[in-house]
Amino acid sequence: MNPPVKTAEVLLEALPYIRQFSGKTIVIKYGGAAMEQADLKEQFALDVVLLRFVGIRPVIVHGGGPQIGALMKRLGKEAQFIGGMRVTDEETVEIVEMVLVGKINKAIVGLINHHGGRAVGLSGKDGNLILAQRRPHRLPSGEEIDIGLVGEVETVNPEAISLLEERGFIPVIAPVGVGRNGETYNINADLVAGDVAAALHAEKLIHLTDVPGIKDAQGTLVSHLSRPDAERLIAGGIIDGGMLPKVESSLRALKGGTAKAHIIDGRVPHAILLELFTREGVGTEIVL
Amino acid sequence: MNPPVKTAEVLLEALPYIRQFSGKTIVIKYGGAAMEQADLKEQFALDVVLLRFVGIRPVIVHGGGPQIGALMKRLGKEAQFIGGMRVTDEETVEIVEMVLVGKINKAIVGLINHHGGRAVGLSGKDGNLILAQRRPHRLPSGEEIDIGLVGEVETVNPEAISLLEERGFIPVIAPVGVGRNGETYNINADLVAGDVAAALHAEKLIHLTDVPGIKDAQGTLVSHLSRPDAERLIAGGIIDGGMLPKVESSLRALKGGTAKAHIIDGRVPHAILLELFTREGVGTEIVL
Amino acid sequence: MNPPVKTAEVLLEALPYIRQFSGKTIVIKYGGAAMEQADLKEQFALDVVLLRFVGIRPVIVHGGGPQIGALMKRLGKEAQFIGGMRVTDEETVEIVEMVLVGKINKAIVGLINHHGGRAVGLSGKDGNLILAQRRPHRLPSGEEIDIGLVGEVETVNPEAISLLEERGFIPVIAPVGVGRNGETYNINADLVAGDVAAALHAEKLIHLTDVPGIKDAQGTLVSHLSRPDAERLIAGGIIDGGMLPKVESSLRALKGGTAKAHIIDGRVPHAILLELFTREGVGTEIVL
Amino acid sequence: MNPPVKTAEVLLEALPYIRQFSGKTIVIKYGGAAMEQADLKEQFALDVVLLRFVGIRPVIVHGGGPQIGALMKRLGKEAQFIGGMRVTDEETVEIVEMVLVGKINKAIVGLINHHGGRAVGLSGKDGNLILAQRRPHRLPSGEEIDIGLVGEVETVNPEAISLLEERGFIPVIAPVGVGRNGETYNINADLVAGDVAAALHAEKLIHLTDVPGIKDAQGTLVSHLSRPDAERLIAGGIIDGGMLPKVESSLRALKGGTAKAHIIDGRVPHAILLELFTREGVGTEIVL
Amino acid sequence: MNPPVKTAEVLLEALPYIRQFSGKTIVIKYGGAAMEQADLKEQFALDVVLLRFVGIRPVIVHGGGPQIGALMKRLGKEAQFIGGMRVTDEETVEIVEMVLVGKINKAIVGLINHHGGRAVGLSGKDGNLILAQRRPHRLPSGEEIDIGLVGEVETVNPEAISLLEERGFIPVIAPVGVGRNGETYNINADLVAGDVAAALHAEKLIHLTDVPGIKDAQGTLVSHLSRPDAERLIAGGIIDGGMLPKVESSLRALKGGTAKAHIIDGRVPHAILLELFTREGVGTEIVL
Amino acid sequence: MNPPVKTAEVLLEALPYIRQFSGKTIVIKYGGAAMEQADLKEQFALDVVLLRFVGIRPVIVHGGGPQIGALMKRLGKEAQFIGGMRVTDEETVEIVEMVLVGKINKAIVGLINHHGGRAVGLSGKDGNLILAQRRPHRLPSGEEIDIGLVGEVETVNPEAISLLEERGFIPVIAPVGVGRNGETYNINADLVAGDVAAALHAEKLIHLTDVPGIKDAQGTLVSHLSRPDAERLIAGGIIDGGMLPKVESSLRALKGGTAKAHIIDGRVPHAILLELFTREGVGTEIVL
Repeated sequence: MNPPVKTAEVLLEALPYIRQFSGKTIVIKYGGAAMEQADLKEQFALDVVLLRFVGIRPVIVHGGGPQIGALMKRLGKEAQFIGGMRVTDEETVEIVEMVLVGKINKAIVGLINHHGGRAVGLSGKDGNLILAQRRPHRLPSGEEIDIGLVGEVETVNPEAISLLEERGFIPVIAPVGVGRNGETYNINADLVAGDVAAALHAEKLIHLTDVPGIKDAQGTLVSHLSRPDAERLIAGGIIDGGMLPKVESSLRALKGGTAKAHIIDGRVPHAILLELFTREGVGTEIVL
Repeated sequence: MNPPVKTAEVLLEALPYIRQFSGKTIVIKYGGAAMEQADLKEQFALDVVLLRFVGIRPVIVHGGGPQIGALMKRLGKEAQFIGGMRVTDEETVEIVEMVLVGKINKAIVGLINHHGGRAVGLSGKDGNLILAQRRPHRLPSGEEIDIGLVGEVETVNPEAISLLEERGFIPVIAPVGVGRNGETYNINADLVAGDVAAALHAEKLIHLTDVPGIKDAQGTLVSHLSRPDAERLIAGGIIDGGMLPKVESSLRALKGGTAKAHIIDGRVPHAILLELFTREGVGTEIVL
Repeated sequence: MNPPVKTAEVLLEALPYIRQFSGKTIVIKYGGAAMEQADLKEQFALDVVLLRFVGIRPVIVHGGGPQIGALMKRLGKEAQFIGGMRVTDEETVEIVEMVLVGKINKAIVGLINHHGGRAVGLSGKDGNLILAQRRPHRLPSGEEIDIGLVGEVETVNPEAISLLEERGFIPVIAPVGVGRNGETYNINADLVAGDVAAALHAEKLIHLTDVPGIKDAQGTLVSHLSRPDAERLIAGGIIDGGMLPKVESSLRALKGGTAKAHIIDGRVPHAILLELFTREGVGTEIVL
Repeated sequence: MNPPVKTAEVLLEALPYIRQFSGKTIVIKYGGAAMEQADLKEQFALDVVLLRFVGIRPVIVHGGGPQIGALMKRLGKEAQFIGGMRVTDEETVEIVEMVLVGKINKAIVGLINHHGGRAVGLSGKDGNLILAQRRPHRLPSGEEIDIGLVGEVETVNPEAISLLEERGFIPVIAPVGVGRNGETYNINADLVAGDVAAALHAEKLIHLTDVPGIKDAQGTLVSHLSRPDAERLIAGGIIDGGMLPKVESSLRALKGGTAKAHIIDGRVPHAILLELFTREGVGTEIVL
Repeated sequence: MNPPVKTAEVLLEALPYIRQFSGKTIVIKYGGAAMEQADLKEQFALDVVLLRFVGIRPVIVHGGGPQIGALMKRLGKEAQFIGGMRVTDEETVEIVEMVLVGKINKAIVGLINHHGGRAVGLSGKDGNLILAQRRPHRLPSGEEIDIGLVGEVETVNPEAISLLEERGFIPVIAPVGVGRNGETYNINADLVAGDVAAALHAEKLIHLTDVPGIKDAQGTLVSHLSRPDAERLIAGGIIDGGMLPKVESSLRALKGGTAKAHIIDGRVPHAILLELFTREGVGTEIVL
Repeated sequence: MNPPVKTAEVLLEALPYIRQFSGKTIVIKYGGAAMEQADLKEQFALDVVLLRFVGIRPVIVHGGGPQIGALMKRLGKEAQFIGGMRVTDEETVEIVEMVLVGKINKAIVGLINHHGGRAVGLSGKDGNLILAQRRPHRLPSGEEIDIGLVGEVETVNPEAISLLEERGFIPVIAPVGVGRNGETYNINADLVAGDVAAALHAEKLIHLTDVPGIKDAQGTLVSHLSRPDAERLIAGGIIDGGMLPKVESSLRALKGGTAKAHIIDGRVPHAILLELFTREGVGTEIVL
C-alpha cells in the first residue's frame, strides 16, 4: 500500500496518457512469460481491466504455450518435422484448437473477469472472425512443401469484436482460423494480432515478449526501428526466429492503419501500463 | 429438388408459424443423435440458419458427448463413481472444458457458419454468463457427498447473449459455469438450457432427445404433460435417468417466464422445423 | 397439407434465396389476372405477407382494372378517344382516382392485412409521393395532341414509403400523381412501379402480367432481354401494346439503380415466390 | 397585408398559446361548411399547416359530405331507411368508401400539401387503424334492427398515425373501419375522431360544426358543458340530431385521456387558430 | 389585444417565413439601444422566445455597454488610449469579463427565461468555445503597437452551442475569448457573431444596430450591399467607426457558409420579427 | 517523476475505486483554501480532469471568496449587518453575481480547460437551473427580519447539467438563484451543492473545507456522523458557523437520494483523489 499522496501524484502523471488513449483500441499480443508466471498473469489481468475502466479499449490476442506440447505428449502424438517445420495434421490441429480455445482462452477470460473486467473469448470461427487459408512453406532448397493445416489470415471480420468493445466487453481472441470449406487452421498468434489491429484501425499494437526488445548487430537495444532497418537486420540474420513474425505483424498493422506498434518485455511487471502511461515507454517501437 | 409450386405451397403453410415466432427467442438444447450423426448435424445447422433468416432468434445450448469420454480414456484418466455419480476432480473438469468449449462448441459454430449463419460460441465464463456453485449430491442413504466440480446455475448474466442476438448472431453456449473464486464447473446442459431460457424470457425451450417424447406408465406418448402429472411419473419412476433434468429444466424455464417447453425426438430429420412450423408439433409439451 | 418432412425440405431449399433478399426492397407491379381472380388474389396477399415475415420488404404498385370502366359506364360517362388514346378530362380523372384509391387500393390493403400483414395504402398525393406532369402525346402524324390529365412521373418523394417499410409496414401505392398546381393525374402503373423502384434503389422490380414473358420474333420465350434486343423487338413491333410500358419501366428502374427487373406470368399460382425462391425463376429478365 | 409592426404584436400575443401546445397532438374533426366552402377550405388547410410549423401536431378526421349522396344518386342507388336510419348494404358501403377515401380524403391531403404541409391520408383499413364492428340499432319500440354495414370503433391501432406524426407528416383519416372478417364499415366520423383522440392521448379534440356551439334550453350558448348537464340537455331533447355524436365523442375522448374537447363554429374564418391562439376561445368546451 | 380574426390573418402571413426558417439557426448580434431601453429589451426577449417556439434556432451574441465604463469609473480605473485605441491591461480585461459574463449575459438570460424561453449563457471560455489570440494593431504611421488583451477569434468550437440548440435551449454568448495560455481576451462582439455564424453554418446573421442600415455617399439607405461596393464605401470613409466590424463580420460569415447577413435598426420595435417574417425586410443585406 | 513500476502499482491500487465510481456523478463543493492557493487550485483542476477521463462525472459547485469583499470595498459599498446577518440589497447582489459568475466561475472553467478538461460554467439562471426564493431569517429574539436578496433553493432543474455531463463536459455551477419574478438571489453554495446532488441522484457529495472534518465535544475527529449525533452536536453548539450549512446540505443530499456525503480537508493536496481512490478516505462521512 502506498502513501495516499503518492497515489494522487502518480494518477496525475498518468493523466496525459489516459487522455491520449481515451476511447482508442489497443491490441495486445499476449504470450511468453507473461502468460506463464502466476504473478505476471495476475498483473496482466489487472492491467487490462484498468485500461478498460479508464476508457481505453483493450483487445487481447493470445498464443499457445507449453500446454499444447504437454497434451500432445500425453496423447502419444509425436511431433513430425519437415525442413524444421512442424507438420500439422487434422488430429494435431484438433488438439491445438482444444487447448487454445478450451483451456488457454478460457483461463485468460476467467482471470480478467475475476479481477472485475468483462472479457468474452472468441476463436477465429466465431462470427467467421478469421477467415484463413493454407500458408505456403518453402524449403531453403526452394521446394514448396505441404505441412498441413498451418494457416495465414485471409480476412478479418471484426464485427463481433467491435460489438463487444462498444458495450464495454474485453475481447480475447484465440489464433484459430476457419477455411472456406470449414477446415480449422492453426495460425501464428503474432500475425493474427497484426491483422486484427489493422482491421480495427487500432491506435496501438503491443507485442509482449520475453526479451527487452530488438537489438542491433552490436547488441544494443533499438528504441525505434524503421522498415528498411528491419529488413537489413532480417537479411543479416540479426532478427530471426520468433522475432520475425512479430516484426512482420507490426509492419502489417502499421500499413493497415494502426498508429503505432511496439515489441516490449513482458517479463517486466505491468509492462503494458509502463508502455502506455509513462514517458519513457519500453522496448522497441516499429516505424513504417 | 421439389416442383416449384410445391415450394410455394409449403412456404405458405409455414407462414402462420413464422408470423407467430417472428422476433422471438427460441432456446434449443442440442444433444444426442442430432449432434452425432453427420446428416442430422447438417440438418440441424440448416434449421437454425433458416430460423434466423425468417426473423426468429435461436439460441443453442449444447451438451457434451462421447468425445469427453474418449479423450479421458486416451489420457488414461479413469472415471470414479460414488453412489452412481461421476466424481469430477480438477483434471476432469479441465478435460471437460477443453472438449466442450474447444472442440464441440467450435464444431457447432463452424457448421452453422458454413451454412450461412453467423454463430458465436460462448462458454459460461464469457462475460460471466453462467455464475455457478457446487451442486450438492445426496446418496439414497441421505448422506451428502462431495463429488467435486459438478455445478448448478446460480445466476445467468444474459447481456452478451442479448447483444449478439440483437445484431443477428446465433449464440452457441457450452454448459460450463464459473464460480465465485474463478473455479470451473461442469453443469448439466439440460439445466443450463432451462435457466438460459428463463433469463431470456424465451418464447420456447426445445430439448432435442433420442426418444419420441415422454411416455406414461402404459408406454403411451404424452403430448401434454402437466407439473402434477410429471411429479407423479417421477415418483413412480416412469420418468427417470436422463429425462429427469429435461423435465426439471422445462419446469424451471416455464416458471421463469418461458412460454412453452418441449421435449422432442432429435432423430427425426428437421425435428426443430417440424415442431415450430407444422400443426401437429412433435413430442411432449411440458405445461406448468 | 403436406407431409411435415416435405415442409422442412422445401423451407430449406428456399433458404439461400431468403438469405439473398434479406432486408432488401422488392417492388411488385400488381395487375392483370392476379388482381382479378379470387384464388390468385389470395395467393398474392399470402406471398406478400410471407416475404415481409421472412425479412424481405415488398412494396406494391397496383394498376386499375375493369372497375374503372364499369363505374364510368354506370355513370353514363362515355369514353372519348383521339388517335387511339383515351381523353381524360377532369371528371374522368376523378372517377379513376375514386376507383384506384378508394376501392382497388383499399381492397388490396384489406386483403393483405386479413392475412396477417400490415399494409398501408398510399396515393401519389400522400406526402407528395408522386409529383407528376402532363405526358405529351404525339399522333403517328407527328402532331402533338392534348389528351388531358394523363401524367408522367416527374419526381418520386419516397420518404413516406421508407418510413413505413422500416417499421414493418407494406406500402401499397395507387398510380395517381399530383401536379404542381394540385391537379390530379392518372399515370400508367407500370411506369410508376419503375420510378418507385429506382427511387428506392430496390433490389428487384417484378411485373406481374398475363403472359409467360416476352417472346422473340419466332415466338420463343426470351429469358434474358438486353436493352439493344428490347429496342430491336420494339422497332420490329414484336414488343407492343401493354408490354411496351413494362419494358420501359424495367429499363428506367435498372438505370436508376434497381439490381434486377422481371416480367413474369401472374396467372401462375404464387408466381412471386417462384421467381424469388426457386432456381429456375420464371418469365423474362430485363438486362441493361 | 398588415403593417409590419402589427404582425409582430400579433405573433407575440399568440406566443403563450404556441408554447402551451408545443409538441402536443390536436385531433380535429373536419366537416360541415369548413369542408365545402372554397374560402373556408383554404383557410382550414392554412391553419393546419401553420399548426404543424409552429411545432403542434394536428391529426385530421374528416366526414363525408354531399358528394356521397350525389354519387349514389348518379348511380341510381336509392336510399332506404328503416326507423329513420339509412340502411347500408354492401354496394352502399362501397360507394361511401370510394367517395370518402378516393375523393374527399385525397382532396384534403392535396389541399394541405399544396399549402406546404406534408399530409398523408389513411383509411381505417391502413395498418388496421380502425377495427370496427356492427353498431346495434334499436327502434324507439325497443326492437333491434339490422341496418347493415354501419359500424362502431372496436379498437384504434394508432401506430401508423404516431409514426407519421413523429416525422412531421399530418395524418388525415377517413372514417372507414374494417371488421374481423375484412368487411368494410361506414362509421360516424365524430365518433372516430373521439376514439382517435383517446388512443393518441391528444391534448385537444376540436369538432368543427355549422353552429356556434351548444345552446341550453333558453337558447343561450353554453361555454362549458359538464357531463351531467349534457345528459340533462340530451334527456330534454335540447341536444339532438347531429350534435349527439359530437357530445358522445367528446366525452369518450375525455375519458380516454384527452385533456380538452371543444365544439366550435367552423363557419368562422380560421376558427381553429382562434380556438387555439386567442384568449376567449370559441364555442363550447365539454368537461368531464 | 387585437381582434381575433386579425390574429389568424397575421399568423398566416407569417407562415411562409416560419416554414422557410424552420429548423434553421439564426445568429443575432444583440447590442445598442435594443439592449438598453427597457421596452426594446422586453420586445427582444419575446421575439427570441417566439422564434424558438416556432421551430427556429436563435443564437445570441451580445456586446458590452455603458456598464463596463461605469464600473471602470467607479473603480477609479482610468482609460488609456494609444493612437485612439483603448489599452486593455489585465485589470481592465477582468472588469470587462465580470460585466459581460456576470452582469450583461445573466441579465439577457434571465429576461429570455422570464418570458418562457430556456436560455443558457456561455462565455468563450466555456467548453473552449472561442479560442482567441492577440489582435495586432497598427497605427496610421504603420507602426504596430501593443494595446494589450484585445483579441481576435482563432477558432470557434461550437459543440456546446450545438448541443444546447438541439435540445431546445437558446445559447447566449459573451464575447470573451481564451488564449492558448489561459489568458482572457476582450473581443469585438460583432466579429464574434460573424465567426459563430460561420462555425454553425447559420442560415442568417442579423446585426442589431442604432441606425437604419448602411447609407451610400449620397446618404441613401442601401438595401443590398455587395463586397466590392462595401470595399469602395470603406475606402471612401463612408463606412467607418462601429459599422466597420459589422460589415467585416458579415462578410466573414458569408464566406464561412452563412446564407444571409443583415444590418438592421434595433430601435424599431420587434426588428427581428420584421426582418424574418415580413416581405420587405428591413435595413441592409450584405452580399458576397 | 516516479519510478515507472511505482506508477503501475499505484494505478492498480486505484482500480477498485475507479470501477466503483465508473459512470457515477460526484458533486464537489469547491471553496476555501483549495480555491485560493495557487498550488491547490492546480491540483484541484487536475483531480477533476482525471475523474472525467477515468469515466467518473464530476459536477462542481463553487462558493465565493475574498474577491467579493474586495470588490465591494473598492466600490465603497459598506457591509450592513442586522443581527449578525449581512443585508443584501440589489446593488450587493449585483456585485456578488458579477464576481461569482463573471470572475470566479470563469477562472475555474478556464483552469480546468487549461488542464485538458472541457468545463462549462453555469449560473442558477442558465436554463432556470436554480429557482430560488427569499430565505427567512429569524433573530434570536424570534423576530423575523428582512435581510434582502439572500435566497434558498426552491427547485433545481438539472436538465442542462445532465445534458453537459452526458457529452463529457464538466459543469461548474455558481450559487446564484433566480426568483419567480426574475430577481437574483445569492445562495449559500454549500446548500446549492446539496440540492444539486439530490436532483442528480449523485453517488457522492464532497465538501472541501479548511478543517480536517467534524470534531466531537472532545475535539476528536468523527469519521462517521449520524443524523441524531449531528443534531446533538448542533444543539450543543459543537457544530456551528460555516460547518452548519455543510451538515444541512449533506443531510438534504442523502435524503434526496445521494448515496454518500463527505466533509473533507481541502488543504490536503489532492484531497478529492484521496477520498475517492484510497482505502482510508479522509474527513467525516455524514450518514442518514
